[in-house]
Amino acid sequence: MPLKIEIIGIGNELVTGRVLDQNAGYAAARLNSFGFEVNRIVLIGDQPGNIRSALKEAGKRADAVLVTGGLGGTLDDITVEVVSRVFQRPLVLHKGLQSQIRRFLTLRDIPWDPIYEKIAWLPEGVELFHPRPKACGFMMNEKGKLFFFLPGVPEEMRRYLDRQIIPYLVNRYPGQKVVRQRVYNVFGLLEPEVNEKFKDLEKRFGSLQLGFYPKFPENQLTISIRAEKAIGAERLLDSIEKIVEERLSGYLISKNGQTLEEVVGDLLIQKRMTLSVAESCTGGLIGHRITSVAGSSAYFDRSVVVYSNKAKMEMLDLPKKVLSRFGAVSEKTALLMAEGVRKKSKTDLGLSVTGIAGPGGGTPQKPVGTVWIALASGQGTKAGHFLFQGRRNQIKILTAYTALNWVRSYLINDTFLFSH
Amino acid sequence: MPLKIEIIGIGNELVTGRVLDQNAGYAAARLNSFGFEVNRIVLIGDQPGNIRSALKEAGKRADAVLVTGGLGGTLDDITVEVVSRVFQRPLVLHKGLQSQIRRFLTLRDIPWDPIYEKIAWLPEGVELFHPRPKACGFMMNEKGKLFFFLPGVPEEMRRYLDRQIIPYLVNRYPGQKVVRQRVYNVFGLLEPEVNEKFKDLEKRFGSLQLGFYPKFPENQLTISIRAEKAIGAERLLDSIEKIVEERLSGYLISKNGQTLEEVVGDLLIQKRMTLSVAESCTGGLIGHRITSVAGSSAYFDRSVVVYSNKAKMEMLDLPKKVLSRFGAVSEKTALLMAEGVRKKSKTDLGLSVTGIAGPGGGTPQKPVGTVWIALASGQGTKAGHFLFQGRRNQIKILTAYTALNWVRSYLINDTFLFSH
Repeated sequence: MPLKIEIIGIGNELVTGRVLDQNAGYAAARLNSFGFEVNRIVLIGDQPGNIRSALKEAGKRADAVLVTGGLGGTLDDITVEVVSRVFQRPLVLHKGLQSQIRRFLTLRDIPWDPIYEKIAWLPEGVELFHPRPKACGFMMNEKGKLFFFLPGVPEEMRRYLDRQIIPYLVNRYPGQKVVRQRVYNVFGLLEPEVNEKFKDLEKRFGSLQLGFYPKFPENQLTISIRAEKAIGAERLLDSIEKIVEERLSGYLISKNGQTLEEVVGDLLIQKRMTLSVAESCTGGLIGHRITSVAGSSAYFDRSVVVYSNKAKMEMLDLPKKVLSRFGAVSEKTALLMAEGVRKKSKTDLGLSVTGIAGPGGGTPQKPVGTVWIALASGQGTKAGHFLFQGRRNQIKILTAYTALNWVRSYLINDTFLFSH
Repeated sequence: MPLKIEIIGIGNELVTGRVLDQNAGYAAARLNSFGFEVNRIVLIGDQPGNIRSALKEAGKRADAVLVTGGLGGTLDDITVEVVSRVFQRPLVLHKGLQSQIRRFLTLRDIPWDPIYEKIAWLPEGVELFHPRPKACGFMMNEKGKLFFFLPGVPEEMRRYLDRQIIPYLVNRYPGQKVVRQRVYNVFGLLEPEVNEKFKDLEKRFGSLQLGFYPKFPENQLTISIRAEKAIGAERLLDSIEKIVEERLSGYLISKNGQTLEEVVGDLLIQKRMTLSVAESCTGGLIGHRITSVAGSSAYFDRSVVVYSNKAKMEMLDLPKKVLSRFGAVSEKTALLMAEGVRKKSKTDLGLSVTGIAGPGGGTPQKPVGTVWIALASGQGTKAGHFLFQGRRNQIKILTAYTALNWVRSYLINDTFLFSH
């Protein structure tokens, strides 16, 4: 049985929404990766009643409780007092901590203040972690249940967790199973379709857990395995990965949380190819995504964001008669944009998009969401037609994503194999 | 007495630390700003036992419970089943929702799947919010306690909360005084600085509540007033708004949640001016932001994303000797880029950015985060130097934001008045 842990975050700022708590999520991720199971995260304000009930409830359910916040010297830091009362452990002066605090203050020329005295008074029988003068973390064994108390300042919380608590737990509970997880980014499949493809896996592999998280426009599929040893978990995940790759095939964009633009960047580097872009309805989003990858200057030359027809004619030599005959959102325009930017920039690939992002500008023939994407290469140029649904920014995001996915597909297959 | 609310977030990803929950914090902030009190936030995984105990405990303590997550059609979405069992409300088919789902699928050519059927089966006696085909939010009155169930996808959760739940709560508890709120987007001031500027207001106006939400790179300041009548609250807010405008002055980007690009767009339309952009380190992000505003084609002509030096020379006629003597990231280059794009596009304004987004490419003279921004107009051209901190994408975002803010400042003042 994995050790069951609950996390309690204390502080008014957490329940008023003034501060987004990141401590609990961080601690949960770290503890999980070492095979400990976090069952519940509870955030409460600085009221004695709330702290009392949260401590009692967590102590009943969990094997260990990690409490963050409320350890400082100011008036609203009342965690220590409540702990003292709830567990009937009178506050005692920790002389070692007191002299540490005095040394710290002297060293920094900070005048003495009663609030520093308060920090050195802790419940009887607790064990101090490496003393810290502003708020010292400590632990307590209460009838076999472990309680860890840490400051709420994220850097201090993390240092205590990583350097003291996790080593302590791993050492005390060596029999824990480990948990290993892989993340797959999927595009073009709906949640039920992904579900259908993998629902047998949970039956086949007892300890396997599937997760699914929409992250527009992608979906993230996670596969977790709990095993005796890390190597066992990884081996099982390797064999499951083959099933995942086979069943997702073209819908699998990346493994291990890589972004689509990172995948495209890696492929371009691998093939020693360069890319330029001509964007209309995406307004620069494709260039932005490509350049969000460090080192993209190695393969990305330029993007021309030709929002107006004038810009399309001036910067990509689009003939006026093409625009007036076929329109800015047309196969012909997309083809000429891709070829134009490829030719001007002398890159291996030229990518273009033109469409109607809405909410205005749609017609019965070309409704909002109509998009043409084209890719020009040494092998010729291909264009494809799409009708995306959604609000303006969703259409932009879908268009940019699909266009980059065309580049990915072209680079993987060494030829045009796009599905519309 | 303010209404006491608890929030429950359901999903394995929240307690394994794979996803940082932002729903609870967002909801807490919004609810607080309308005078409701959030007492506890509980995050749990997709296990029936955990969901059951969390629902029961929250129902005992709170007046209303907001539950997010686990409403989809996949196997791990079990919130609805657990609710049905805990509150002994058998699942019934909501025909209206079912036909909405069918219409949605037909419209998008998505084949029917049993999991869509599952979404339309909800506990007896619940009230549906505006139906959404992927996961529909609903509410339930259980012996005087209100339970709200929302999808875990942040955009959907926020839409339900802001458009349905908050208006519902504000309406249902008229005995509670009315709460009116204004939102101010602030840029360039830290939380303690904003706090310092306004901390006297809470004392001066008894019912006033300040809220502060970082929304990188902006910060949102909210000011809420609780009063007997709406007109009284609005009048008070009007007079407070004068104080806010005075104290924030140049740091105040917009009121009522407008985005910076919307403000810039409105100003360009008002002044009948047009804009073109030359981007290097932002890679297209400025164009993307400008074109995220519907109707931006009225004032936005083009963005040239000149990522390579070759592109800078070919597309903006930058002399090779300027690039080799001063470098691509220099005042001279920024000035010539802004003038070049303005001249080529014949727009009223030409905006340019060039910088080092990192993590590579920095030198002792030009460290990562070094950015030059320039704006060319009929009155001449001005350039400014910045040193931004952060990761690659943060530097890109800060650069795009600051550049657009230059345009805003220029349009407001009818001249160059930038602070660096």
